[in-house]
Amino acid sequence: MPFLYIFSQAFAQLKNASYHNMKGGIHMSNDKKITIGIIGMGRIGNVHFKNLKQIDNVKIESICDILAKDDWVEKYSVKKIVKDYHEVLDDSDIQAVLICTPTDLHPQMTIDAAKAGKDIFCEKPVGFDNAEILKALDAVKKAGVKFEVGFNRRFDKNFDRIVDYRKNGSLGNEQILKITSRDPEPPSMDYVRHSGGIFMDMTIHDFDMARFITGEEVDRVFVTGNVMINDEIGKAGDIDTAIITLMFKNGMMGVIDNSRQAVYGYDQRIELFGSKGMAHADNVTDSTTTYSSKDNVAGDKPMFFFLQRYMDAYKRELESFFGAVRGEHEVQCTFEDGIRAIRLAQAAKKSLDTGAVVSVQDI
Amino acid sequence: MPFLYIFSQAFAQLKNASYHNMKGGIHMSNDKKITIGIIGMGRIGNVHFKNLKQIDNVKIESICDILAKDDWVEKYSVKKIVKDYHEVLDDSDIQAVLICTPTDLHPQMTIDAAKAGKDIFCEKPVGFDNAEILKALDAVKKAGVKFEVGFNRRFDKNFDRIVDYRKNGSLGNEQILKITSRDPEPPSMDYVRHSGGIFMDMTIHDFDMARFITGEEVDRVFVTGNVMINDEIGKAGDIDTAIITLMFKNGMMGVIDNSRQAVYGYDQRIELFGSKGMAHADNVTDSTTTYSSKDNVAGDKPMFFFLQRYMDAYKRELESFFGAVRGEHEVQCTFEDGIRAIRLAQAAKKSLDTGAVVSVQDI
Amino acid sequence: MPFLYIFSQAFAQLKNASYHNMKGGIHMSNDKKITIGIIGMGRIGNVHFKNLKQIDNVKIESICDILAKDDWVEKYSVKKIVKDYHEVLDDSDIQAVLICTPTDLHPQMTIDAAKAGKDIFCEKPVGFDNAEILKALDAVKKAGVKFEVGFNRRFDKNFDRIVDYRKNGSLGNEQILKITSRDPEPPSMDYVRHSGGIFMDMTIHDFDMARFITGEEVDRVFVTGNVMINDEIGKAGDIDTAIITLMFKNGMMGVIDNSRQAVYGYDQRIELFGSKGMAHADNVTDSTTTYSSKDNVAGDKPMFFFLQRYMDAYKRELESFFGAVRGEHEVQCTFEDGIRAIRLAQAAKKSLDTGAVVSVQDI
Amino acid sequence: MPFLYIFSQAFAQLKNASYHNMKGGIHMSNDKKITIGIIGMGRIGNVHFKNLKQIDNVKIESICDILAKDDWVEKYSVKKIVKDYHEVLDDSDIQAVLICTPTDLHPQMTIDAAKAGKDIFCEKPVGFDNAEILKALDAVKKAGVKFEVGFNRRFDKNFDRIVDYRKNGSLGNEQILKITSRDPEPPSMDYVRHSGGIFMDMTIHDFDMARFITGEEVDRVFVTGNVMINDEIGKAGDIDTAIITLMFKNGMMGVIDNSRQAVYGYDQRIELFGSKGMAHADNVTDSTTTYSSKDNVAGDKPMFFFLQRYMDAYKRELESFFGAVRGEHEVQCTFEDGIRAIRLAQAAKKSLDTGAVVSVQDI
Repeated sequence: MPFLYIFSQAFAQLKNASYHNMKGGIHMSNDKKITIGIIGMGRIGNVHFKNLKQIDNVKIESICDILAKDDWVEKYSVKKIVKDYHEVLDDSDIQAVLICTPTDLHPQMTIDAAKAGKDIFCEKPVGFDNAEILKALDAVKKAGVKFEVGFNRRFDKNFDRIVDYRKNGSLGNEQILKITSRDPEPPSMDYVRHSGGIFMDMTIHDFDMARFITGEEVDRVFVTGNVMINDEIGKAGDIDTAIITLMFKNGMMGVIDNSRQAVYGYDQRIELFGSKGMAHADNVTDSTTTYSSKDNVAGDKPMFFFLQRYMDAYKRELESFFGAVRGEHEVQCTFEDGIRAIRLAQAAKKSLDTGAVVSVQDI
Repeated sequence: MPFLYIFSQAFAQLKNASYHNMKGGIHMSNDKKITIGIIGMGRIGNVHFKNLKQIDNVKIESICDILAKDDWVEKYSVKKIVKDYHEVLDDSDIQAVLICTPTDLHPQMTIDAAKAGKDIFCEKPVGFDNAEILKALDAVKKAGVKFEVGFNRRFDKNFDRIVDYRKNGSLGNEQILKITSRDPEPPSMDYVRHSGGIFMDMTIHDFDMARFITGEEVDRVFVTGNVMINDEIGKAGDIDTAIITLMFKNGMMGVIDNSRQAVYGYDQRIELFGSKGMAHADNVTDSTTTYSSKDNVAGDKPMFFFLQRYMDAYKRELESFFGAVRGEHEVQCTFEDGIRAIRLAQAAKKSLDTGAVVSVQDI
Repeated sequence: MPFLYIFSQAFAQLKNASYHNMKGGIHMSNDKKITIGIIGMGRIGNVHFKNLKQIDNVKIESICDILAKDDWVEKYSVKKIVKDYHEVLDDSDIQAVLICTPTDLHPQMTIDAAKAGKDIFCEKPVGFDNAEILKALDAVKKAGVKFEVGFNRRFDKNFDRIVDYRKNGSLGNEQILKITSRDPEPPSMDYVRHSGGIFMDMTIHDFDMARFITGEEVDRVFVTGNVMINDEIGKAGDIDTAIITLMFKNGMMGVIDNSRQAVYGYDQRIELFGSKGMAHADNVTDSTTTYSSKDNVAGDKPMFFFLQRYMDAYKRELESFFGAVRGEHEVQCTFEDGIRAIRLAQAAKKSLDTGAVVSVQDI
Repeated sequence: MPFLYIFSQAFAQLKNASYHNMKGGIHMSNDKKITIGIIGMGRIGNVHFKNLKQIDNVKIESICDILAKDDWVEKYSVKKIVKDYHEVLDDSDIQAVLICTPTDLHPQMTIDAAKAGKDIFCEKPVGFDNAEILKALDAVKKAGVKFEVGFNRRFDKNFDRIVDYRKNGSLGNEQILKITSRDPEPPSMDYVRHSGGIFMDMTIHDFDMARFITGEEVDRVFVTGNVMINDEIGKAGDIDTAIITLMFKNGMMGVIDNSRQAVYGYDQRIELFGSKGMAHADNVTDSTTTYSSKDNVAGDKPMFFFLQRYMDAYKRELESFFGAVRGEHEVQCTFEDGIRAIRLAQAAKKSLDTGAVVSVQDI
């Protein structure tokens, strides 16, 4: 059939074109399928669910949520919808679980999942209570399961580039780290009251970044903070604006500035300065389009909040977790990383309360 | 059970937090499911396949490709894999088709799909031969099916912003349009020989952009072009570098510059200048991270090529097509749009050949 | 005296500090003094006067202007103020003159100054009438005096950097040149009527830039232009908006876009694209300060007009002229350069009038 | 004479052109002449001398320097060159003096100049010793002369824009100030030993900026610092890298980071964040030209050092001083400003030495 012959020929040519082997192209993964369960289907659970649909060779077997409804089977196109997470852990088909519940539930669920032999991806922070956390760490070690904490910013391409520059020697000896981290708007007062405080809820990401970006450990912290946005936050015993100075064990120093409200959007910048140069990750915007008028040259604000800015990072952290589950590489954000960030948050709180420099307690 | 009570309470609080209603957040679509078939599973077919997995309420019923293999059922997790596209058209479950085959096949497949009552998404250009194209247009009109041409750049957020500025009056009367469009590397010579020439293969996107960005029609074109990158391209009767001047019916003017090889990556910038201001869409980079060294301050190159730069646009064009199929809005890029871009490419070729200004023939 | 001892010591230390030998530091010139006269004290004459005060070893002996007033001796702190330029030329103390009068006076004044043996800095264009211009060129050659045309943009640091990149091989083979040149507001209708038309008055700078940036000669031009800003300009036989395509002798191509009114300020950008890379000079702003608000991230507009943007270039062109007068280097912008820019303006006018491609006549 | 008639007419037209009244244009000042003397002709004295030549209606009567030479009369084209500054003060023609000597000489010279009734522009810092400084302040007050401290950064256009945004309410309530201030290379060890330490020599500018940018007073400081660049600096009892946290009286907070060596140039950025927005002044570069290659998109480094970055500010500070001398406006940087910056430097040193938060002592 002449028609099909032409079709075939033209198509083959296209397939052989140099375009076909382009960098960053499309490929279908041949990885072994991983069957998972999601525990907790609130905001972050839904974020992960959305991203999982774009990841090859991962099958969501069941979803657990205390508020689960019958129509979720259809809504999420998942076989099992349960309300008790033990049902997920008892399912021998499930190899790994994502724990996306409120923080105070993390340690017990981690312990139960580890005992059930599941690999675990757990949202940050790993817990509030030091004793519970250490028990969970112990359970994970004994069970020998993989455990990754969901510090999504480690998977942001912009921050990743800073680490690349550090690792390839472009920055020389590290000297100064600067992290700007400001939310676009404060959470509800209900949220604030159960958040564990600004350091445990918000700065904890920055503490993890401080360790991730530099590859170094913080020795001491000094904090100054205040209530500058909403008096209610102060009445709840929290603050909304802070500057945190970090003194690292290797002598370098760093500073984090936090605000619960930057009216221009989610301000997330990091800068690492060393003897050979500086790497600086700027904010990300929706578009590169500027408008020049008689008034000024105006560009887009930073992306609104973490769901926009870090959507790609959320996907990459899951891909990384599944890579670790498959044994392709080490876990990129360990339980110890989760604990060290908490220790920094606790030291920061103590510095704020005492007005003095505070040593960071080791694990 | 106290444990579950706490769980439920904390969870409910989280759900009620103001964070929950954030802009740009995650939602599950309630749209009616559309069942589709993909005809042609080369490079661009795979791009669309990948994006379809992220779009809710669309089911890929079958994939057709002259080179299809048995294991594609598993590879793509699709029910039917066929080699003859008529099998797709004969399937009454299928509401819409994506035509992703080589250009010379577009008109006949469009005619057949229209006769079968399928809504059609067809890759650009809609064809090479004027007579065939008009026959296909006729068939689509008679059948009353939806037809969208795949000019993906219409769905790029950066270019879209320029149109926003134009439509909301920020630019005043349009005066000058500038389009920079340079590929990172030339295609293979095999590809060049079957491409229909630079204007039909590459500039056709820019011609569509010229119409989309301005909302105006081009009256005449003048082209100067040359072979500056690869003599083989010249031997094949084509050029690799060109500047195209556009004279619009409303008196405004524009210019496109094309190169088949920008060593720094895919250079895709557009600027619209008017009596009240200018909107300028710059290139998109992988990261916002810069490196300051003793030599300079260096940032990322533009994203490598169209799969990187326009990946999101490819997804958005399909979402838009499905919106049109559902009747939520008009088709965003019509058959007429497809023909007008071809007319511009033909006029450009004639201007290059004659060295003179050429009028653009209307449909 | 102990006090003075300490003073002396501390001072000596300061002088020996490494800071003292810093790059770009302050130095006092030891160059031989050049005595000059300024002919024409309108806007541009005053610009040069202001800059001359910052240049070492140049003495302004006399100022000539048809509208000169008695109090100018005090106003400008200059010895002689005259109304007839022959008095300047007859002054044997004067080595060089700056001709800053209206264009139609340039050729005769050049001839007279050359005959008087003065080195000449003449504002652009060198004249309107071809025959007069050639006579002036002849007189300059016969007299053997230095002659520099005032194409100030050749001395802009940003554009200079593009030439650096070209000369050091960073750009490879030149392929595409793009010049954006838009004024912030149209001149008065009086000015328009005596300007010689947009190409001779405004684009002439861009034509010179096209030659300066590329180091290549233009073979043919094609122009499309229109009246889009002010109908009065059309009634005066001129246009206010244009796109000029340049076809160079070496096969490369270029495009200039002009507007008499960019509401956001003086838009002066140049881009040179070659086989190894691209150099792009962006606009210059008053400050680097941005303001991020709930609306956008806004930066400064480009500097208002040529007096702001090119003030430093005006100074550097005079320094360069005096360097040539002293024999330190060749004249950086010759009489021939002045004529070639005029030839391009004349070809552009002819292309606009005929709607066809026009060859550029050689000298 | 027809020729002159045409000349006159054309010229008149030019003069009447709208161009003539352009913003930011050239004008000759009609201000009353101020006669001055310069005391100390080291590096900074020469900087001021160079700038004075561009300022209208200021006459340099004499220059004093302990190392002055006879040929300076010709070199600087100044009437009197003296070695003893009392000769300057005794000259009744001199209205104002610039004190550009080493810091330890500032108080006594200030006292003597004030007693002689001269208006005083004094380089920063106003002195090292608190008692001497207060005596000098007292002398200035008693004499009723104008006194301005040379904190040149107050006259930088970029930083000035931040203050504009603050004053016009664009920033709302101030919350966070960030100052990045890094030198391109450390001074000689001789310089370091006589510098008064990093806080008094380098950070003192940043302390003044902290007050100038915010319009607020600092209550307490906390410093962490280290020797990270050159061990010799440590042996001399100084540090080369520091992070200084500022706690303001109004509750807002700030941070300064300092380094004696940024290999990419003089890094001078300031950011003021408030309830309604953020103003951010970025570094200044020599050109806006970027080079896009297969490696990256590279732009200029920040200008090398203060003579490049702040050259315009040095000129503007003198213009401002002369404006104050003429009574046109208040002194923009007072003796009190000079003392407050010193108090901050002293508090910073104490915080570094004690590792604790230190209150800033008021004047």
